[in-house]
Amino acid sequence: MSSKNIDLPKLDSPLAPDFEKKATNTIRMLAADGVQAANSGHPGMPMGMALPALTLWTRFMHYNPTNPAWFDRDRFVLSAGHGSMLLYSMLHLTGYDLPLDELRAFRQWGSKTPGHPEVGHTAGVETTTGPLGAGFSNGVGMALAEAWLAQRYNRPGHTIVDHYTYAIVSDGDLMEGVASEAASLAGHLQLGKIIYLYDDNSITIDGKTDVSYTEDWAKRFDGYGWHVQRGVSALDSAALAAAVAAAKADPRPSIIGCSSIIGYGSPARAGTSKIHGEPLGADELKATKANLDWPQEPAFYIPEDVQAYFAQAAARGAALEAAHADRMAAYAAAHPAEAAELRRVISGALPAGWEQALPVFPPSAKGDATRNTGGKALNALAKVIPNLVGGSADLAGSNKTTIDNQPFIKPGDFGGPNIHFGVREHGMSGILNGMALHGGLIPYGGTFLIFSDYMRGGLRLAALSGLRVIYMLTHDSIGLGEDGPTHQPIEHLAALRAMPNMTVLRPGDANETSQAWRAALLNTTGPSILALTRQNLPTYDREAEGLGAADGVLKGGYVFYESAPKGLQLVIIATGSELDIAYNAAKQLAAAGVGVRVVSLPSWEIFEKQEAGYRQSVIPEGTAKLSIEAATTFGWARWVGNDPRKSASIGIDHFGASAPFQRLYQEFGLTVENVVATAKTLL
Amino acid sequence: MSSKNIDLPKLDSPLAPDFEKKATNTIRMLAADGVQAANSGHPGMPMGMALPALTLWTRFMHYNPTNPAWFDRDRFVLSAGHGSMLLYSMLHLTGYDLPLDELRAFRQWGSKTPGHPEVGHTAGVETTTGPLGAGFSNGVGMALAEAWLAQRYNRPGHTIVDHYTYAIVSDGDLMEGVASEAASLAGHLQLGKIIYLYDDNSITIDGKTDVSYTEDWAKRFDGYGWHVQRGVSALDSAALAAAVAAAKADPRPSIIGCSSIIGYGSPARAGTSKIHGEPLGADELKATKANLDWPQEPAFYIPEDVQAYFAQAAARGAALEAAHADRMAAYAAAHPAEAAELRRVISGALPAGWEQALPVFPPSAKGDATRNTGGKALNALAKVIPNLVGGSADLAGSNKTTIDNQPFIKPGDFGGPNIHFGVREHGMSGILNGMALHGGLIPYGGTFLIFSDYMRGGLRLAALSGLRVIYMLTHDSIGLGEDGPTHQPIEHLAALRAMPNMTVLRPGDANETSQAWRAALLNTTGPSILALTRQNLPTYDREAEGLGAADGVLKGGYVFYESAPKGLQLVIIATGSELDIAYNAAKQLAAAGVGVRVVSLPSWEIFEKQEAGYRQSVIPEGTAKLSIEAATTFGWARWVGNDPRKSASIGIDHFGASAPFQRLYQEFGLTVENVVATAKTLL
Repeated sequence: MSSKNIDLPKLDSPLAPDFEKKATNTIRMLAADGVQAANSGHPGMPMGMALPALTLWTRFMHYNPTNPAWFDRDRFVLSAGHGSMLLYSMLHLTGYDLPLDELRAFRQWGSKTPGHPEVGHTAGVETTTGPLGAGFSNGVGMALAEAWLAQRYNRPGHTIVDHYTYAIVSDGDLMEGVASEAASLAGHLQLGKIIYLYDDNSITIDGKTDVSYTEDWAKRFDGYGWHVQRGVSALDSAALAAAVAAAKADPRPSIIGCSSIIGYGSPARAGTSKIHGEPLGADELKATKANLDWPQEPAFYIPEDVQAYFAQAAARGAALEAAHADRMAAYAAAHPAEAAELRRVISGALPAGWEQALPVFPPSAKGDATRNTGGKALNALAKVIPNLVGGSADLAGSNKTTIDNQPFIKPGDFGGPNIHFGVREHGMSGILNGMALHGGLIPYGGTFLIFSDYMRGGLRLAALSGLRVIYMLTHDSIGLGEDGPTHQPIEHLAALRAMPNMTVLRPGDANETSQAWRAALLNTTGPSILALTRQNLPTYDREAEGLGAADGVLKGGYVFYESAPKGLQLVIIATGSELDIAYNAAKQLAAAGVGVRVVSLPSWEIFEKQEAGYRQSVIPEGTAKLSIEAATTFGWARWVGNDPRKSASIGIDHFGASAPFQRLYQEFGLTVENVVATAKTLL
Repeated sequence: MSSKNIDLPKLDSPLAPDFEKKATNTIRMLAADGVQAANSGHPGMPMGMALPALTLWTRFMHYNPTNPAWFDRDRFVLSAGHGSMLLYSMLHLTGYDLPLDELRAFRQWGSKTPGHPEVGHTAGVETTTGPLGAGFSNGVGMALAEAWLAQRYNRPGHTIVDHYTYAIVSDGDLMEGVASEAASLAGHLQLGKIIYLYDDNSITIDGKTDVSYTEDWAKRFDGYGWHVQRGVSALDSAALAAAVAAAKADPRPSIIGCSSIIGYGSPARAGTSKIHGEPLGADELKATKANLDWPQEPAFYIPEDVQAYFAQAAARGAALEAAHADRMAAYAAAHPAEAAELRRVISGALPAGWEQALPVFPPSAKGDATRNTGGKALNALAKVIPNLVGGSADLAGSNKTTIDNQPFIKPGDFGGPNIHFGVREHGMSGILNGMALHGGLIPYGGTFLIFSDYMRGGLRLAALSGLRVIYMLTHDSIGLGEDGPTHQPIEHLAALRAMPNMTVLRPGDANETSQAWRAALLNTTGPSILALTRQNLPTYDREAEGLGAADGVLKGGYVFYESAPKGLQLVIIATGSELDIAYNAAKQLAAAGVGVRVVSLPSWEIFEKQEAGYRQSVIPEGTAKLSIEAATTFGWARWVGNDPRKSASIGIDHFGASAPFQRLYQEFGLTVENVVATAKTLL
């Protein structure tokens, strides 16, 4: 250690005022310089919240910059993702793999410093944020995962899962409904290791927050059952530290209102909306540096002692991780089975032989609803995959999301695999994302398919972040029946298929449902949706009837039925509940001498990923094509073409209606007769 | 009047206990019988909230059953739409055009009594509900519309707009984020004529509400700035009436917590989740009728005196409307211009000659962003259409939603056309729907296109309900640039186009933007979305360059450019910002001797509605087809086909990235060079 370092202020301790000011201004000016260099971005939040961030990262948070994946680290969520330069500055200063050149390349092609933080893209970023409220809800999921793992794996004398979830949240986060939903559930469950710092800066994009936001947020969070502190100055590290210490001591989730000045340091713009989302500009940046006694040059200046101060985080982090590794070793010695399981669930791997647990359903003409067989598959899998954790947004009985004979998570008691999310779809999606991001759990959630609309924000972030989150979305068509058009999905399959990296699976019988669960668990790089029926579908006797095997689901689509002794004339493509209509129509057409094939296409996305030769072997060029699906025909031209002489799509390009589902299928032309009649027009 | 009626209890007065019980049980049993007959539905809520509904409809609400469209009526929102039989029962009893046979046909094909209430389908239904939280937010929009119209049109001595917005809301409504957002804004704006009855029955679908919902809702609403009463027994009409009277007297929006027993009257199921969403079954229905001293037969029994009691609502309503008509006449005499305008805005008609106000933009190579020209069109239109009222979800400066030199609506001051919705997209969509449902206003809203995800619930209900709501959704592609993939729409155009009755318009230059506004205003039967760029697009000199006229937007698509002296070989189809890429590529191809056409297709939906001959004249069969759009290619096969030898779609089938937009266009192949090269592979 050089002599210079002997006097270096220590992490974990209060700083002398001058040094604290210098370290804080370093963060502020990195952000201001980064935004200026990019000529776009949000300098105001980092400048206002630099000291709270510094306080968290130096005096409270446990992390190891040289191993961002260390499992027992505290999680830090920048829910106000537009303030990304704050996070990038902290990551750089504390020694994560984020060189200063990356900060200089803020918001540029190929950089590690995109406009909003992206998990998986930048070391140390815990979640992708920007869409407001999302990070808030992710943090709740992270804390829930921590609590679940702690209760399952910790043993007396062996506390091996024990960390906090910190976040910086903004007024925009608090205004978004998804945060309200997540906050209510976090308060209900008493997730005490949540500590959120609220950047209460009274400024929003459109001006002062009081143009639209005058609620008493503290009273609201008190109502949710949170521990609330307010009016903690964002310029007072002692007060901030005391507030965080109080939050840690309180058994409730905590929110600390930090009275901050957006763009602190900017003479002309501090405390105004002008500094929220645009660069200071050369002149004001100069004036700001002068105002803060900061050297004008170089840009991205980091004083040597400040660099050295923060750099201690690496050694501290390594020591923390090493100590944890020692505890893990002792735990493994005392509880080898638990330790092995914990290591496996952290890795994301599934237990050897898990696929043996997949149910194989016997043929049945009466059959079953795929929501039922989906629930049975879940239950069978849960017996061998203990970290399948999830539930429904208050439709557990309908969605069949409950793991039988196992407890529900309750306030302060996280022993069960089942969760009551309440009527909070968007919140559920954000919490599930947080659970997946935390690691150790394979989260799943359920609601009606129609309510995927309520949670598209969370679904998209799961897809963008590459998270294995599994959805059981039931009542997947007008087959819902009497509840009517408000509850009947029409455009939802198309809208979800259009989303990059989202895998939609709409199985056509019980055994396809089992295989759909298999495909979903095998998809480790993105979310999967199982679209499941309310109504019964027959379970096919595939061998006796000469039908394709159900594990064709793993290829997205496969030849289900064919009768073409004299050559193939027509391919009928169907998904889910319409497979049986297609099959019965095809048998009629075959009896009439038509060379016909039925393709079951439960997952467009998986099918798209197959080699061209396979795809061509299933849906060959040249023949007439007909699709049937109880949903919008939007998108189906991809498979059947748009030539009206050779292609047709039977579907529902209008809203549904309230009636028994059999009547709706008749009225909307989703019938064997209509398929046969339409097919004949193509031949 | 028959002698029998002389003793009939009067509306507007307290009832004797026995008669009140009989009248309330009539409502309960109609609901129970309706659900039983349908063998599906939700009897619990109507049975629990029958007396609060009776109290509102007999002693407080102003309405005219024989003219459901009477403008100054109080609005009633059944936010807990699953309790639809409660609303149908009240509508039938009070004399709306809903015969008892319709109640018998509950949830059947062709009935006026769908599973959830649908506005426009059933006389007296004010809004389509079922998706929870939506009705709550609609009511806020209705109250905002009332306040706006009252301030604009009422004059001293002439109070011609003066009514309340009542609702019954459930625990599910309060859990949904959309309700939180709307509640916060309603509290902020002090919309004092909102009076919501909260069905605080402690039961949710999954069991007792306390499995997921233990927040102190009263404290939360107090935090929002609402007037809160709690613990008002749903079995005590005097207490209910006193609470409503107190709510009317309070200047804040009011919520009254009604302590209710779900399924009141059912011996075995009252107070349990079992009665929430399924029929009682024959035995329990029998036991319930016995328990309530109700005749077992006939089903749908309405005692004669109860029928007569409620039937007084028609005469009362006619008198209320007549008195209002007298006030209107006096107002019209004193303020003829205001009265004429009020009558016009209520009718939904636009002022004569409004299209003259549409801006015509001069040619400009530098051009402008369509968000800017969209804002200019809005401002020009607002000069002649005073009831264009709206704003942005905290992105007014980016979305260009502000009507210049006009005030913003403020707490208690509703004089302006501009609204700060705050960071509350879903709430905004529900409020805009409520404004449109109320009538008198043409509501519009803005946010980034990406955040259409947050408000799909509201967008869908606008489409299902046929509401003229206009959206200015800017930053409509990777043209957003540096903010990165969290903010760059990819699948959103497709996901919105897939929605029935939604009209998406993506104009390609300034004058198409002006025409897109025209199309949106002309679309009186559904919502329209203007997808607008952040970046500049050239404004074409259509005459000089021989290009199609911009009013081709009104046909959805049109021939923009053609050079095919020797016959047409290739049609390039583009929307919005990619029109210019297509145009420049076409000019290069034309120079190389290719017979090429560019079709501008700003609205698929409007184009689909044109006659086949027109569509065929624009996008003819037989030629090669190429589409380009800075979005997913999902859906484009509808126009270009799926034959790889003759068709291609250039787009982005993955998430975006953070960088200046020009770089993204290059990296993702959205270039003239790529269009030319791809075109050559098709020729």
